[in-house]
Amino acid sequence: MRLLVANANTTEAITHACAEAARAVAAPGTEIVAATPRFGPAVVSTRAENIVAGHAMLELLAEHAGSVDAVLLAVSHDTALDGARQMMPCPVVGMTEAACLTACMLGGRFGLITFGGVEQYRELMARYGLDSRLADIVAVNASPPEAVADPDSVGTKVLAAAKALAAEGANAVVLAGAALAGFDNRLQAAAPVPLLDGMACGVRMAEMLVALRLPKPHAGSYAAPVGRMTGGISPALAALLRGNL
Amino acid sequence: MRLLVANANTTEAITHACAEAARAVAAPGTEIVAATPRFGPAVVSTRAENIVAGHAMLELLAEHAGSVDAVLLAVSHDTALDGARQMMPCPVVGMTEAACLTACMLGGRFGLITFGGVEQYRELMARYGLDSRLADIVAVNASPPEAVADPDSVGTKVLAAAKALAAEGANAVVLAGAALAGFDNRLQAAAPVPLLDGMACGVRMAEMLVALRLPKPHAGSYAAPVGRMTGGISPALAALLRGNL
Amino acid sequence: MRLLVANANTTEAITHACAEAARAVAAPGTEIVAATPRFGPAVVSTRAENIVAGHAMLELLAEHAGSVDAVLLAVSHDTALDGARQMMPCPVVGMTEAACLTACMLGGRFGLITFGGVEQYRELMARYGLDSRLADIVAVNASPPEAVADPDSVGTKVLAAAKALAAEGANAVVLAGAALAGFDNRLQAAAPVPLLDGMACGVRMAEMLVALRLPKPHAGSYAAPVGRMTGGISPALAALLRGNL
Amino acid sequence: MRLLVANANTTEAITHACAEAARAVAAPGTEIVAATPRFGPAVVSTRAENIVAGHAMLELLAEHAGSVDAVLLAVSHDTALDGARQMMPCPVVGMTEAACLTACMLGGRFGLITFGGVEQYRELMARYGLDSRLADIVAVNASPPEAVADPDSVGTKVLAAAKALAAEGANAVVLAGAALAGFDNRLQAAAPVPLLDGMACGVRMAEMLVALRLPKPHAGSYAAPVGRMTGGISPALAALLRGNL
Amino acid sequence: MRLLVANANTTEAITHACAEAARAVAAPGTEIVAATPRFGPAVVSTRAENIVAGHAMLELLAEHAGSVDAVLLAVSHDTALDGARQMMPCPVVGMTEAACLTACMLGGRFGLITFGGVEQYRELMARYGLDSRLADIVAVNASPPEAVADPDSVGTKVLAAAKALAAEGANAVVLAGAALAGFDNRLQAAAPVPLLDGMACGVRMAEMLVALRLPKPHAGSYAAPVGRMTGGISPALAALLRGNL
Amino acid sequence: MRLLVANANTTEAITHACAEAARAVAAPGTEIVAATPRFGPAVVSTRAENIVAGHAMLELLAEHAGSVDAVLLAVSHDTALDGARQMMPCPVVGMTEAACLTACMLGGRFGLITFGGVEQYRELMARYGLDSRLADIVAVNASPPEAVADPDSVGTKVLAAAKALAAEGANAVVLAGAALAGFDNRLQAAAPVPLLDGMACGVRMAEMLVALRLPKPHAGSYAAPVGRMTGGISPALAALLRGNL
Repeated sequence: MRLLVANANTTEAITHACAEAARAVAAPGTEIVAATPRFGPAVVSTRAENIVAGHAMLELLAEHAGSVDAVLLAVSHDTALDGARQMMPCPVVGMTEAACLTACMLGGRFGLITFGGVEQYRELMARYGLDSRLADIVAVNASPPEAVADPDSVGTKVLAAAKALAAEGANAVVLAGAALAGFDNRLQAAAPVPLLDGMACGVRMAEMLVALRLPKPHAGSYAAPVGRMTGGISPALAALLRGNL
Repeated sequence: MRLLVANANTTEAITHACAEAARAVAAPGTEIVAATPRFGPAVVSTRAENIVAGHAMLELLAEHAGSVDAVLLAVSHDTALDGARQMMPCPVVGMTEAACLTACMLGGRFGLITFGGVEQYRELMARYGLDSRLADIVAVNASPPEAVADPDSVGTKVLAAAKALAAEGANAVVLAGAALAGFDNRLQAAAPVPLLDGMACGVRMAEMLVALRLPKPHAGSYAAPVGRMTGGISPALAALLRGNL
Repeated sequence: MRLLVANANTTEAITHACAEAARAVAAPGTEIVAATPRFGPAVVSTRAENIVAGHAMLELLAEHAGSVDAVLLAVSHDTALDGARQMMPCPVVGMTEAACLTACMLGGRFGLITFGGVEQYRELMARYGLDSRLADIVAVNASPPEAVADPDSVGTKVLAAAKALAAEGANAVVLAGAALAGFDNRLQAAAPVPLLDGMACGVRMAEMLVALRLPKPHAGSYAAPVGRMTGGISPALAALLRGNL
Repeated sequence: MRLLVANANTTEAITHACAEAARAVAAPGTEIVAATPRFGPAVVSTRAENIVAGHAMLELLAEHAGSVDAVLLAVSHDTALDGARQMMPCPVVGMTEAACLTACMLGGRFGLITFGGVEQYRELMARYGLDSRLADIVAVNASPPEAVADPDSVGTKVLAAAKALAAEGANAVVLAGAALAGFDNRLQAAAPVPLLDGMACGVRMAEMLVALRLPKPHAGSYAAPVGRMTGGISPALAALLRGNL
Repeated sequence: MRLLVANANTTEAITHACAEAARAVAAPGTEIVAATPRFGPAVVSTRAENIVAGHAMLELLAEHAGSVDAVLLAVSHDTALDGARQMMPCPVVGMTEAACLTACMLGGRFGLITFGGVEQYRELMARYGLDSRLADIVAVNASPPEAVADPDSVGTKVLAAAKALAAEGANAVVLAGAALAGFDNRLQAAAPVPLLDGMACGVRMAEMLVALRLPKPHAGSYAAPVGRMTGGISPALAALLRGNL
Repeated sequence: MRLLVANANTTEAITHACAEAARAVAAPGTEIVAATPRFGPAVVSTRAENIVAGHAMLELLAEHAGSVDAVLLAVSHDTALDGARQMMPCPVVGMTEAACLTACMLGGRFGLITFGGVEQYRELMARYGLDSRLADIVAVNASPPEAVADPDSVGTKVLAAAKALAAEGANAVVLAGAALAGFDNRLQAAAPVPLLDGMACGVRMAEMLVALRLPKPHAGSYAAPVGRMTGGISPALAALLRGNL
């Protein structure tokens, strides 16, 4: 199967890192296709950026509609997830959603660690209906560049956060954010509960959905768009909204 | 005060209708500035369209940042509301949000009538935390063109829906969707409970927020963006995300 | 329009202060009519007092039914709000409700600061269905008399509470309680997020509702009482419950 | 023990009926003291009446503070329950609360049958935090006078409602409202699930609380009022609020 | 009446202690019958143990079906409560459920103190639909043996936890766990709010349910099992599941 | 990998059917090991049976601890799921949980179809925290034997239920219950939304969890039992609870 790893940031380096991470965990028969949006935020962080990136994501996905078997949104905000699901003819998975649902299958409640954006992740959990499964969210006092420059120091903070979340009742901890990629492997041995990486969970969930060969709904708010007219957007996206796959 | 009535659809006729509706209810000192996005769906309806329209809305708002005192999102999905609030230096109100909060001030629970998109409105109510104030949502079996062509027949259906919602416990009914504009005045006399129009409530709420002279938050997820780098988007929007108002 | 500012405390000084605060924020055409109940607690604070004050409030409102265009309950417990709404022929707004709904229009979650009564405010938020919009409630360790005697010292505590709430995710902070009136103006410049005063929000919300010219519901639990027989209560209140406006 | 059965209606006949019902179910050592408020609604039904009756209830209870071992609020709205609990030196039970908590001990969800006021009972269940235990509320299309005049016909409707609630998942059905008293015995044999009468459950719960000899809280929002000053209310109530028991 | 106090642990000493506690609080006419399961955990603590103990509990109860008037599950996890209720011809009460519902009748929110198992109790509260009535759960840093060996020291910790819960808004505190039995009497005088013991509340609630003479439901998920075939379980339990009481 | 498909019913024919269904969907490298409990209900249906089957399930799993890579609970009640997860050294998945979490990844809300037990499934969804993702549960008026004897007729009813759920907003429908196995393939072509079979989803989710190589938690309520003493249970289960894997 061909799995599109769709970055929401326009920073190519992140796309490459995500693709690499995806390839590291993918099943043998899974081909990773990575892509970067044509426009939008360098790194999606704030509310407004996430909205701009939503359009960029849909434009990007439309280029691949019909040529991939599944999509993984490689952005911890799961940008444009519901619209992507409605529009695309194949399964679409969000990396944070995938990690949280994986956490659910480990039982009890889970925690979530970020480098910021606590309120936005809280809202995301509420949108997924997972509030009651969420023990807490901890924002580690560090920045993505620091995570690259001094992973030991940042790792110490992340581990402390994971331990604090476990003490609050979390039975697993989701590491949310591309900058936390790899910290699951680095810290797992010392962590009291499983650490979940969105890329790993997302790739496996996408493979799982493809294996199930579920059809696209023909009714309801996730049925494919038909006859929706637009102006000023990319030809591929416009065609998909008109229903011309 | 200058109030930007920002349509999310690229159909100019809807912008004109919204502007007219806004002017009809605005206070004497309120100047209505209406605007149409440069790109996007002709009429926002499905999930994917709403995401595309979100970017178009932010681009549109960025053109007016600093030159208007408040913004009313003239689209029943309240498209891009949280991002617009974060990004803009002035109050931003969603028309459906405004109608629902007005309904709250009438006491008890409210109902909502649409021409479709029940699940999307249900999710919107949940995002606003208003699930427990919502009695029910009814999708009237009619289309926007029918509402224009045969308002008597459609009005009969809307009135029946309002009565059914009142019987379910709704103490007010929100008419969601531009195509339902004007039906509040047409049907109110025969309706058992108040009918709330989003444009009317939205204009008044925007005036109210301006009158309160509340500052922009300096912290948290609604603080103005600073230093966010982007590519391929409109200069005004890019500047606003960088923090150059 | 004539706006009744109805105190729930029998302390005239509070009524005067509320009236003054209301006049300071009211629109040009709004005439403030202030009133004090005939009986009840000097200052409503505990659960039992709030119930006694509820009757006193309805008796007070009944005196003004038909002669005012709207009512603002000038008491942070929003005493008797649902009964007042049912009984009165005009809009009725609670000052804390108004501030909380205003906070909703700023996006995200809000905090609430009081001089006590945390559990009662928590229950009020739950009754309004706003639990998920509430970040937290902080009781400042100070009394109303201290707020008058040493506003600098109390202001320092209130500001610290507002900063703590913002750090917990609050995008706005409601100052609940008459004794906190004026602290919004005093502290806003130093606060990270907007501070909301119930009198200011309440006056503006009442004006907004009057401007919308919404009818009274004819059905449901907020329809005006008809034929309800009573004994031993004030003639005006008895008449209103019988349906003789 | 002495149990005060406190009616919230000023109709003496209801007080007598309640007292009789209480005596029929009370344990041998329980003396029933019945009382009627001095003022207020003949029959509490609407929101405004319930507020007026709240004050009347507290005035009534204050007359008995110290001379009874427990109080049962003999009104299906559980009028003034939280204030009565705070103010009185003994346990206070609401008849509908008692029936609902009894229903909880039968397992699963329960239904509620009334002669009206569905929204008010829905709010009451929410205030008790029992929403998730409530299967549904059914308003039987009959009036209290009809229940007296034609109990067979009304009983048929109540039984149908009970069966409908059981089919919706209710494992027990609460009969809410004095006018439904006695229908539990009349209909139980034909009902698929237990029918719960508030007076019976309330008397037994009050006895149970007295048997447990729990102290009054010294802290928090249910601690007895101390030093609360009032004007224009009954001497006994004023004394109790001042803390002079 | 005959009340079966059914231990879920196979430790006879706990059964004796529970029986003694039950007798100390029971009404004059209540005969306490205590019983220990034939197999299972010595002391139920973890999730897996609670499941094994569930079967042991049902086997134990089946031995007494028809010969007791009510059952009290003498285990703070309320092990097998829903199955026991469905299967037994008489009322079944869980000791923690009974304490929590008693707490509800004191008004406001309650706290819960344990020696561990916070997540399991949190889930229990959620299953009872009592999340919104729960202020918090505190795990005292002590073990059951320590509670026996050094009750003064452990009592100091429990009292501190009770004070902390009251400060968080709890109007009553449930002591969950057999090892906390007796601490209510020991600490009540110094505690700011009522301390509730599950055995005391449970015995009284069981007496209350018997007094109400409620029938067994004939429909729904709590109707007695009929015709359910099993293999390899005790004859009494098998007979009860077949419907041969 | 070796996947234990653990039936909770003692009916061998169901075990064989489940094993066959699992093999039909398993990935090439997945070896299906099917097992039947030594004791318990022939077919788990009621609350009491589910508790007895919980113990039987744990006894069964203990026999395989260490010799399988994952467990799939092949029973639509997900019997003993939390205890199995705590006790076993490998991932454990419930078939209904797996189908519901798969449904979540399709977006929006899902429906659930059963042959009975609506209240028990409703409680299961609440325990999973998925209430807000559940559109509704429909009990098809048919029995498992009818499903075998007349699949066309029963299929017509199931399809009607699926269409009704889609009309209520479900974007996917979970078929809960072994007797509904195979109806997904039979009816999918005619259904408006994806039909999800618990065995298929469960096998794939179990494979996914094994692929992620997540460690067992060392802390919290899902850490493996250590030193838990029991009596009268199977040696393998006793050993596992003592911590002797």
